[in-house]
Amino acid sequence: MIKALKGQIVYSESSNKLKICENGYLVYEANKIKGVYPTLPEEYEGILVEDYGNRIIVPGFVDLHVHAPQYAFRGLGMDMELLDWLETNTFPEESKYKDIIYAQKAYQMFVDNLKKSATTRACIFATIHKESTILLMDMLEKAGLATMVGKVNMDRNSPDYLREETEESVNETISWLEEVQKKQYQHTKPILTPRFIPSCTDELMCKLKDIQEKYQIPVQSHLSENYGEISWVQELCPKSEFYGDAYDQFGLFGRDSKTIMAHCVHSDEREIKRMKENGVFIAHCPESNTNLSSGVAPVRQYLEEGMHVGLGSDIAAGSTENMFVAMRYAIQASKLRWRLKDEKLSPLTMPEVFYMATKGGGEFFGKVGSFEAAYEMDAVVLDDKRLIHPQEMNVEQRLERMIYLADEREVYAKYVVGEKVSD
Amino acid sequence: MIKALKGQIVYSESSNKLKICENGYLVYEANKIKGVYPTLPEEYEGILVEDYGNRIIVPGFVDLHVHAPQYAFRGLGMDMELLDWLETNTFPEESKYKDIIYAQKAYQMFVDNLKKSATTRACIFATIHKESTILLMDMLEKAGLATMVGKVNMDRNSPDYLREETEESVNETISWLEEVQKKQYQHTKPILTPRFIPSCTDELMCKLKDIQEKYQIPVQSHLSENYGEISWVQELCPKSEFYGDAYDQFGLFGRDSKTIMAHCVHSDEREIKRMKENGVFIAHCPESNTNLSSGVAPVRQYLEEGMHVGLGSDIAAGSTENMFVAMRYAIQASKLRWRLKDEKLSPLTMPEVFYMATKGGGEFFGKVGSFEAAYEMDAVVLDDKRLIHPQEMNVEQRLERMIYLADEREVYAKYVVGEKVSD
Repeated sequence: MIKALKGQIVYSESSNKLKICENGYLVYEANKIKGVYPTLPEEYEGILVEDYGNRIIVPGFVDLHVHAPQYAFRGLGMDMELLDWLETNTFPEESKYKDIIYAQKAYQMFVDNLKKSATTRACIFATIHKESTILLMDMLEKAGLATMVGKVNMDRNSPDYLREETEESVNETISWLEEVQKKQYQHTKPILTPRFIPSCTDELMCKLKDIQEKYQIPVQSHLSENYGEISWVQELCPKSEFYGDAYDQFGLFGRDSKTIMAHCVHSDEREIKRMKENGVFIAHCPESNTNLSSGVAPVRQYLEEGMHVGLGSDIAAGSTENMFVAMRYAIQASKLRWRLKDEKLSPLTMPEVFYMATKGGGEFFGKVGSFEAAYEMDAVVLDDKRLIHPQEMNVEQRLERMIYLADEREVYAKYVVGEKVSD
Repeated sequence: MIKALKGQIVYSESSNKLKICENGYLVYEANKIKGVYPTLPEEYEGILVEDYGNRIIVPGFVDLHVHAPQYAFRGLGMDMELLDWLETNTFPEESKYKDIIYAQKAYQMFVDNLKKSATTRACIFATIHKESTILLMDMLEKAGLATMVGKVNMDRNSPDYLREETEESVNETISWLEEVQKKQYQHTKPILTPRFIPSCTDELMCKLKDIQEKYQIPVQSHLSENYGEISWVQELCPKSEFYGDAYDQFGLFGRDSKTIMAHCVHSDEREIKRMKENGVFIAHCPESNTNLSSGVAPVRQYLEEGMHVGLGSDIAAGSTENMFVAMRYAIQASKLRWRLKDEKLSPLTMPEVFYMATKGGGEFFGKVGSFEAAYEMDAVVLDDKRLIHPQEMNVEQRLERMIYLADEREVYAKYVVGEKVSD
């Protein structure tokens, strides 16, 4: 069944160039893109065309790093750095998800708002609790989003109320993966989620690698976010050459296990080299890195090296699921980094942050985040009529303006893997 | 006629401390606050009480620096620094306001959205055009906001299509002030607005001082925003000790003329000392200073020195009229400044940015921006029900969350100088 959307179509031609097709046709068959055409090719005459008029159609946004249980306290308690913030805000809130009733209520809010947003794909941290993690996955599947969700592993340096025994962590992870297999979700996949090196013993990491191999699942974690964290990892893993090497020693840093590392704010040249060699994906989380005073990642360098970079909202160190906000902060943080720290790395541009929010992050899911042929059909139709203006404006300008001003009110329609997400 | 609003009342006790009165009464008579009370005092028994329940009531926000004609291109063309951005985006757009039909259309959009926002007071730049500046003032008066508006003066270093002859600039300014006097606006005042030193000849500045003295009006301009601008001023005014001294030599830098200077990002110790001595108000515009890669002002120092500091949206170098956004960027920019540039100046806190957005900026208008007795009655009632959450939250947390997440949708009611602003 071949169909098309018609409108002002925008996607990335490359990491720093937009491709714009005005009044174009986005043709797709089932869940796959056929192509974008300025006029409908003869072979497609008679297909169903949904005409979105002057609205802008972009690939769905990909949130490479978000903590679902932290949605409850988004925009709160931002006056601390990472390690204090975890102890004070994060761990107490996450412990509540042992209670399935609370989890039901809180996760529903997260899922409802994610559904309304321009996000079509996300890599999500849940908590250590198996039952509520599965509940979250059920909700996301029902919402029609395409996500990877991780039950978190933590067996050290965490408060009693949010720490697993090593064996328990392993067994619960296996049990979670077995249950998820039975669920046969269409668009909801598990992702192995050791919280970060300080929370996971060597023994646990070894066993998680076994699980990763057995179930052939991807991995997500945190890397080089904050100076205090980096020194702590060096103490905890004296044999590691650098923070990322601590993951790599356990086989959980790219190579044969597809891996996202969030932040990479303070990665040194050795770590950058290893990420590049291992094909690690970087989830750049500019609002989070600002709110927790972590710093600003050298994203210009990552892009120039041809590394995999996407964007993360990182709720609740980031305040919102709105990926337009992640895009604007990515530009803004790069400007302050350029001005205040290092004029060698020029600020990011609008086409670059758009690329990161679509194709850059999408690549973690496969052929996702573009309208090129054979890509999965994720699209968002944006209506910017709320953003009133007196003058003429071209499509690129309208998109730029949305990066600074849009929220869920601009989302007019959303398609995930070929299916229209309904209200 | 004494009345009261009832709700969760928050205002600044000092520049770094909130005063919260839960389920309190904000009592006012005509346009002046009487006080805030946890229970209604006997003497006020029987007065009309508007009960806003669990909603939060704060002083209206004060935008100390905003360019009305730039509203049209908010969120656009952010990939330049100041001087190029002025030539490429700003001056061409501002020249359109010679056409009163365009001005009518464009200014109405600005005024409508400002009215919907949580802003009750603003210091506004118009353009060099007298007629459209008066039109803007008519609209603002009708909207019920309390503002100061300036016809801009520019007689050099500006494109032909947006430059006045010196005499013309002087005469038009006088004619504008005479017409405004006849209008007898209630809440709309003129403010003298030399754009910035590079745009104004010495001769013009001398004559503007005469006008300032004759009409006894305040002054607004720009100061030390960008390195290129600062060097340029040094070339243009070789006799000035520093940028601010160039204004001071003409008597347009505080002292007997109440003055706001926007930005003050790169003010050196001499300039800071002079601003303090002269009682100059600083309009801190963190989003603008980020978008134009200008840098981050040392606001912590300004607060510690007891200087006058408020916040500005600085549309369109800032993208939005939403003063919650200015507050969140003030915190965020201060964190990156601390991390990337100078760990001696600690990041701003939520109570501090709230103070700057209310009482700090409000002081430019007199007794404005607080709920202490004798302050003018500007208040905003905020309803945060859209910002769903599963857990209990206190009033301070709800306010903090709004600083990160709120927009005009949270504005439930607004009072300016004792009058409720109606839709």
